[in-house]
Amino acid sequence: MQVYLDNAASTQLHPEALKEMLPYLGASFGNPSSIHAFGRKQKAAIENVRRSIASFLGAKSSEIFFCASGTEANNIALKLAASDLKVERILTTELEHKCVLNTAKYLQDEHGVRLEFIRTNTFGQVDLSDLERLLKIDSQKTLVSLMHIQNELGAVNDLNAIGTLCDDHDALFHSDTVQSIGHFNIDVKESKLTFLSASAHKFNGPLGVGFLYKKANTPIGTWIHGGGHERNLRSSTENVAGIVGMGKALSIAYQNLDEDSVKMGTLKAQLKQGLREINSSILFNEQDGQSTFTILSVSIPNELIQDTFTIQLDMAGIAVSAGSACTSGASKISDVIKNLNLNPDCSTLRFSFSTFTTIEEIKYVVDFFKKELSK
Amino acid sequence: MQVYLDNAASTQLHPEALKEMLPYLGASFGNPSSIHAFGRKQKAAIENVRRSIASFLGAKSSEIFFCASGTEANNIALKLAASDLKVERILTTELEHKCVLNTAKYLQDEHGVRLEFIRTNTFGQVDLSDLERLLKIDSQKTLVSLMHIQNELGAVNDLNAIGTLCDDHDALFHSDTVQSIGHFNIDVKESKLTFLSASAHKFNGPLGVGFLYKKANTPIGTWIHGGGHERNLRSSTENVAGIVGMGKALSIAYQNLDEDSVKMGTLKAQLKQGLREINSSILFNEQDGQSTFTILSVSIPNELIQDTFTIQLDMAGIAVSAGSACTSGASKISDVIKNLNLNPDCSTLRFSFSTFTTIEEIKYVVDFFKKELSK
Repeated sequence: MQVYLDNAASTQLHPEALKEMLPYLGASFGNPSSIHAFGRKQKAAIENVRRSIASFLGAKSSEIFFCASGTEANNIALKLAASDLKVERILTTELEHKCVLNTAKYLQDEHGVRLEFIRTNTFGQVDLSDLERLLKIDSQKTLVSLMHIQNELGAVNDLNAIGTLCDDHDALFHSDTVQSIGHFNIDVKESKLTFLSASAHKFNGPLGVGFLYKKANTPIGTWIHGGGHERNLRSSTENVAGIVGMGKALSIAYQNLDEDSVKMGTLKAQLKQGLREINSSILFNEQDGQSTFTILSVSIPNELIQDTFTIQLDMAGIAVSAGSACTSGASKISDVIKNLNLNPDCSTLRFSFSTFTTIEEIKYVVDFFKKELSK
Repeated sequence: MQVYLDNAASTQLHPEALKEMLPYLGASFGNPSSIHAFGRKQKAAIENVRRSIASFLGAKSSEIFFCASGTEANNIALKLAASDLKVERILTTELEHKCVLNTAKYLQDEHGVRLEFIRTNTFGQVDLSDLERLLKIDSQKTLVSLMHIQNELGAVNDLNAIGTLCDDHDALFHSDTVQSIGHFNIDVKESKLTFLSASAHKFNGPLGVGFLYKKANTPIGTWIHGGGHERNLRSSTENVAGIVGMGKALSIAYQNLDEDSVKMGTLKAQLKQGLREINSSILFNEQDGQSTFTILSVSIPNELIQDTFTIQLDMAGIAVSAGSACTSGASKISDVIKNLNLNPDCSTLRFSFSTFTTIEEIKYVVDFFKKELSK
């Protein structure tokens, strides 16, 4: 049996999204910038997606910019905020995805941007009072960059509360919503977001495509210079099939938002319960009610498992992640887990679910742990 | 009948490339950075493509970097050459694709890089003696950026001759080979290239993927910060299906390189002959033997055609380009055509061919012109 519980790293492309993409990988081709019929059809396809995505977020079409990944969207937001919006200070946490953290560090090292870290609780949730304290003590032009859902632990931050604090203190607000979009309702106006980043392959869309929301009248210039695509922000002939697949995948996700959250929430609870029953010293890295139904982070005391445990998992066909899997050539001990000094004598595994996860798969995993942990 | 002769703007995805992509848009998914079986399979797929592309170019695998477009590859080369290789001067032509030209202008305006233009002949081919003159008069650290094939006119530059000049004068050499790769043999070592840019959708690969060749021991840093993908040059989870499709499309192109060049060359000659026979005042914007078989640029005296001519073409199902089609919301008068002051009382059309172009299509186009121009 093959059990894929690493959906926070990448999801399977939804067959319905593929179906929608196939014409654009076949008979319907051409450059969306061409003014002939072939080109116009491509252009129409991507503009339909732009409208659809905007509508889900409570945004305007002109606020949605297509790009190649969530990582690229995060780089655009932070780098152009520094260069074009004259941001002097970035407030973030040490638990951000590396594409935010390393970009912020680069801006600090190379462009003199001040970088300050907001405290989080044990399970990675942002400490709002610490954010408020930091916003109050300084009047430098500030960008707050906080992910909606912590990608290794699943802690959910309150975007509306953060956005209100930012707004009250004239700070710009960027959120990496790569782990939440398509799973949670987000309203960019309610959350008072300046920027939001998303990646299609985290919500059953294709790899190689993402988008950036940028609030109207936020005058950033150009990230990739060229023919002027994406209102001069990011030149490159648009990835039509990718954009179409992303649009369809997000539509499906929004159609099933409530149903999927119940379904995945139930599966997560069943996995948690199953593991708890096997051994009561297994720890769950979350606070009740404060974590996403899509992720379960589990710490297993090292005394319960063998050194070869992750290999055993792999051989049993179970795909999970030791910490984040979004890092190329990921080291085994996650920086996030290290930072939080979470259960030091444990091995931490991240299980992450999708709309395709089944109860049979959860049972298979629980059975595997039952067998392995009793050895 | 639908006749697509705008392959220099974008090509149709090769069905064999799609076939190779489909597993990666279906049952074979996961994050190439994940260490479990799902991830390892993705990783293996993209590394196979890297080896294959490298072998075609006479490069090492470690010199090939995947990215999202030719435009992005050109941006990376120029911007990181300026920031990390301390390039103080860029030599290029005013006929480069906007992604090179606008990036060079940005580096001039915002980063103090000196920008100088090399002369070209009437049909867009680089004047080698002028390049040599410019290389000689200054000892500033220089990057020469010249496209292999001019995208609107089809003029072919001699990469080996340019590369030798650059090498003789210690200049770095970047070439935008977006229009030539998959159609012409390129050897990065023979051409003494420092950087080469390519885009999959110009050689019957998918949109949204390209690559950069960067010569070993060329110490540029990071373009997109994050998890460290592409040896820390460009973080982002890799577009596995896109990379696989690009690899297959390029393999097919190389298998058929000679055959396709004869086939397209014949079709181009037939179109040229057909148009010449209709009216001898139709002009062809090329020097014999100096232009690519993939492009035919034609200038038609305005007195021969009606204002609605491009609409007529479109209604007849013929897709061609008025100048470049790579510009978003392209204006009708091309900058390149304007720069060369080419046939001012004419309308210029670019016909561009692919391996899928047929003689029936060429005949249909010639018949259309016969009918329209006799009105």
